[in-house]
Amino acid sequence: MLVEFGGTRVLCTASVTEGVPRWRKGSGLGWVTAEYAMLPRATNTRSDRESVKGRVGGRTHEISRLIGRSLRASIDLKALGENSIVLDCDVLQADGGTRTAAITGAYVALHDAVGWLAARKSLAGKPEKVMHRSVAAVSVGVIAGEARLDLCYEEDVAAEVDMNVVCTGAGDFVEVQGTGEAGVFARDQLDALLDLAVAGCAELAEAQRKALA
Amino acid sequence: MLVEFGGTRVLCTASVTEGVPRWRKGSGLGWVTAEYAMLPRATNTRSDRESVKGRVGGRTHEISRLIGRSLRASIDLKALGENSIVLDCDVLQADGGTRTAAITGAYVALHDAVGWLAARKSLAGKPEKVMHRSVAAVSVGVIAGEARLDLCYEEDVAAEVDMNVVCTGAGDFVEVQGTGEAGVFARDQLDALLDLAVAGCAELAEAQRKALA
Amino acid sequence: MLVEFGGTRVLCTASVTEGVPRWRKGSGLGWVTAEYAMLPRATNTRSDRESVKGRVGGRTHEISRLIGRSLRASIDLKALGENSIVLDCDVLQADGGTRTAAITGAYVALHDAVGWLAARKSLAGKPEKVMHRSVAAVSVGVIAGEARLDLCYEEDVAAEVDMNVVCTGAGDFVEVQGTGEAGVFARDQLDALLDLAVAGCAELAEAQRKALA
Amino acid sequence: MLVEFGGTRVLCTASVTEGVPRWRKGSGLGWVTAEYAMLPRATNTRSDRESVKGRVGGRTHEISRLIGRSLRASIDLKALGENSIVLDCDVLQADGGTRTAAITGAYVALHDAVGWLAARKSLAGKPEKVMHRSVAAVSVGVIAGEARLDLCYEEDVAAEVDMNVVCTGAGDFVEVQGTGEAGVFARDQLDALLDLAVAGCAELAEAQRKALA
Amino acid sequence: MLVEFGGTRVLCTASVTEGVPRWRKGSGLGWVTAEYAMLPRATNTRSDRESVKGRVGGRTHEISRLIGRSLRASIDLKALGENSIVLDCDVLQADGGTRTAAITGAYVALHDAVGWLAARKSLAGKPEKVMHRSVAAVSVGVIAGEARLDLCYEEDVAAEVDMNVVCTGAGDFVEVQGTGEAGVFARDQLDALLDLAVAGCAELAEAQRKALA
Amino acid sequence: MLVEFGGTRVLCTASVTEGVPRWRKGSGLGWVTAEYAMLPRATNTRSDRESVKGRVGGRTHEISRLIGRSLRASIDLKALGENSIVLDCDVLQADGGTRTAAITGAYVALHDAVGWLAARKSLAGKPEKVMHRSVAAVSVGVIAGEARLDLCYEEDVAAEVDMNVVCTGAGDFVEVQGTGEAGVFARDQLDALLDLAVAGCAELAEAQRKALA
Repeated sequence: MLVEFGGTRVLCTASVTEGVPRWRKGSGLGWVTAEYAMLPRATNTRSDRESVKGRVGGRTHEISRLIGRSLRASIDLKALGENSIVLDCDVLQADGGTRTAAITGAYVALHDAVGWLAARKSLAGKPEKVMHRSVAAVSVGVIAGEARLDLCYEEDVAAEVDMNVVCTGAGDFVEVQGTGEAGVFARDQLDALLDLAVAGCAELAEAQRKALA
Repeated sequence: MLVEFGGTRVLCTASVTEGVPRWRKGSGLGWVTAEYAMLPRATNTRSDRESVKGRVGGRTHEISRLIGRSLRASIDLKALGENSIVLDCDVLQADGGTRTAAITGAYVALHDAVGWLAARKSLAGKPEKVMHRSVAAVSVGVIAGEARLDLCYEEDVAAEVDMNVVCTGAGDFVEVQGTGEAGVFARDQLDALLDLAVAGCAELAEAQRKALA
Repeated sequence: MLVEFGGTRVLCTASVTEGVPRWRKGSGLGWVTAEYAMLPRATNTRSDRESVKGRVGGRTHEISRLIGRSLRASIDLKALGENSIVLDCDVLQADGGTRTAAITGAYVALHDAVGWLAARKSLAGKPEKVMHRSVAAVSVGVIAGEARLDLCYEEDVAAEVDMNVVCTGAGDFVEVQGTGEAGVFARDQLDALLDLAVAGCAELAEAQRKALA
Repeated sequence: MLVEFGGTRVLCTASVTEGVPRWRKGSGLGWVTAEYAMLPRATNTRSDRESVKGRVGGRTHEISRLIGRSLRASIDLKALGENSIVLDCDVLQADGGTRTAAITGAYVALHDAVGWLAARKSLAGKPEKVMHRSVAAVSVGVIAGEARLDLCYEEDVAAEVDMNVVCTGAGDFVEVQGTGEAGVFARDQLDALLDLAVAGCAELAEAQRKALA
Repeated sequence: MLVEFGGTRVLCTASVTEGVPRWRKGSGLGWVTAEYAMLPRATNTRSDRESVKGRVGGRTHEISRLIGRSLRASIDLKALGENSIVLDCDVLQADGGTRTAAITGAYVALHDAVGWLAARKSLAGKPEKVMHRSVAAVSVGVIAGEARLDLCYEEDVAAEVDMNVVCTGAGDFVEVQGTGEAGVFARDQLDALLDLAVAGCAELAEAQRKALA
Repeated sequence: MLVEFGGTRVLCTASVTEGVPRWRKGSGLGWVTAEYAMLPRATNTRSDRESVKGRVGGRTHEISRLIGRSLRASIDLKALGENSIVLDCDVLQADGGTRTAAITGAYVALHDAVGWLAARKSLAGKPEKVMHRSVAAVSVGVIAGEARLDLCYEEDVAAEVDMNVVCTGAGDFVEVQGTGEAGVFARDQLDALLDLAVAGCAELAEAQRKALA
């Protein structure tokens, strides 16, 4: 599925394989992992391909791990049974918030993949128990002293504080990552950002429900 | 730009940089190169990312080189002047003929990039002399003894002979690559394939003219 | 310098080079970066060397970037002038909290390096302005529903929520990274963890002041 | 065996292993693959070793794949049975036409290897059915408007069109690869090149028959 | 264990795994291998990490192989049985003679590991037969025409001849490696160096006996 | 030049470049380095290409470094001036003693290259001063308790002690590397091996003189 948030477009797909990696065999648990990448011309200035450079960069690694962790929070790996799902999030066009768009879109792709497994009767648990929580993510930031939701690329560069928040549909936190890019932040700023993020995630959870209905 | 041929969708972009690689500096000549890649889920079965494997595969290398060579035939590198253009061809969905779709689409992207350079007055020669030939490509093959144009994935797998042909708008050949995948082929079969390919390329050249008008 | 927290021992060193990487030349700004690594037998079970595997893993990349970002918050890169400092954090023995120990120790090593540059009169700004904030970090987590400071390895594995917090000596936040490893967390849990972390960092800031005195 | 064509010298060897790669096990089919490489000083100017650069270049990959494909056309993989043969083609000295010399020489090495397997009674089919076609290859080109056979390095560089043709002993095509290096080519030029190539391959097929007798 | 010789400090650890690499399975023989590495700031000038460069350098490879070979001379691999031991030698601080210090320390670590296996009754032979020889190593050199034992870094750089000698506790040679770094050496110089080395190794053997008692 | 010793055949070439690597510029000194490699089928059992594996193995690195060190002992780098010479030693066929054959052959190739530079008047010093010593190398070993010169592959495998010795034409040592492959060795055995090696090198020095005359 193609997720669009402002100028950001991310292609999210889920690929199912029967069985799990060797280190997990016989555990009765499934596995969900993610790979994030950007096309070289997703940004305004072309960046070199990581395949050509021969190594995956630190930023790519970090985001792939974040997406995988976030999505594993949405699924009961025991009920999934020994199946593996790879979530590919490829950024076709980037204008801020690519990692949070990827998480939000990957949840829908993962839900579809679980539905496909349910139709094939390949799940270990009851289908409705497998996806036990929805997850969605937003980026928030402080610009000129003010808390803001969904920064575009130009705002992101200008932000004093930059925060990515992953929430469940019930409003709990899965992951909170805040960085003082160009400075530090006080507790009340952090609180304002968290309020904004929780509200933003609630809207996305609603949109996900509609998309899956 | 996004090229679509049947079930095949390729995103072709051109990125311009002033200057040329070090080995070409001072030559007065520009440089055009191409990079081809497939998203992991472009095909029906997910394939591993080359960035994760840490090396670009032989097939990817081979196709990138073919696209680069074909497009260099369309442009007068002296009139381009010391500018570099990278053509990125990323296959979002693959159903046969991805390399020929990439060449056909990359021509349009290259033409646009040259137009952009012309508008900035950054070309060494007259704008109308830079793109001195159009190029387009088709795949043809022999299936059950019969010559066929534009094979989809299933036909491609079944083909006894598989051929990629790159032609100019004037009907000359830029590149001819024919392989007896599951057998060998006689001279008359080769002739029939070439006739079919030349006609197919002529249609594409017409479509390119319209797209650029 | 060798930092010890419980069973965790990290060797932190700062290496100074005159000049900055090419992309930063002429900016008048210095550069601080960090590299984190674990000896193969730092943990109870030997892990393969990343040099032998031929690539730096995602976790290593992620932690190196976190350390670099955190330490750059402590230093005025303009006052540093065009000098580069690499912070090497090598874990000799790991028992939880290696990344936060590395940040806390690297701050002292960085401070020493700046002192050395001051003695050589190689700083662009006034020595006392270069290290404009102290930074220290702690790990906190929720175990059996209760917020806890400085998790050892066994606690870390058992934690439902795991959070790393980097604070300045003045009590502001530099970085907040919380993950629901085995579940999700509510706002009040997050608040309790942040309180604990801020208090922990204040103690470390005091210890750093003594070590540098 | 050492193949010499003009100033080009290629060492071609075939190495037999019992069994096939994992993905082919149980298919009853054998496997033939090829690896092409140049010694660093095969050319007049030393080129860096690919082992030192840590990656096989695009040209090397492309030629290795061409040799493998061409030789698989000469052998009945079912009659070969589950045996693997690697064809190593190492260029000691290069003066044009290294890939076509490699194919022509590798055919003789492959034939010998099959003879060795026959002597050990390790073939699945009748020995005389395994090598069901001979293959040989030539390079042809257009220089100063004229079709020419077996270009040496200097001619190759000067050629307007460069074509490699692989034929069977019966005169059918296995592979046709023509490139307008410095221009494009018309249908009648292509026809003249193909005529020349077919005649050249026929001579080589005769030479192969003698070498194997 | 941490070995210190003058300004050189090497951390030597032994890690035991049941079973042996695939190529050795069923042989009844154990396997001992070593990995040597330097922390980036072990020397006075920081060197780049091999993990970041993506490849293990020639010098590192060479020393790792030397340590492995030397230690295998001390152990009866049949009596060890199908167990694998990896010896990690990480140089924390380097001031000459790091490879010989590593060998001397790794012997003690290996002895301890064998003791641990003996306590678990996991050895194939009698415990006292497994470590059938002690090994220790020294570096010797010629400086200003004179033979010298245990060169520190500055002496090592100035040495005309540089030699590493590995001896058993009984005074036999396991390995002799002499290099005329800045010149060549005559037979009588070689003899003087060997005498000095044998005496130095005897002292180390005595120290090892005490450390293990 | 092609060196043959028994069943061992090594192709040794010297490639000259004007100038030296960056770290040596302005020193007035030249540079000599060596690269050793084996064709995959040089041995009886095919070994994988290091280019395909993506990394140069430890043994290859070690031998390349030994050859480079040995040859640098034969040349006055100041008299060479700022020129670089790469010695490529490619083993076409291996039957023991490949590294010593490579050193002996590379000396002749290096001498020729210096002659070529002399003819072009590109040396910094007097031509006759550049190659100030000849070097040659032999392998010796102990088999069944007896010292032996020039071990072939089968003897090499069976040897209890294996030693490579590099000598100058004047009978001094450049490098001595002795290993107790399957055991240890006493001082008198070492002495016997050195005697044998010195005599063997003297014969090679004579052969080199003839080849160059």
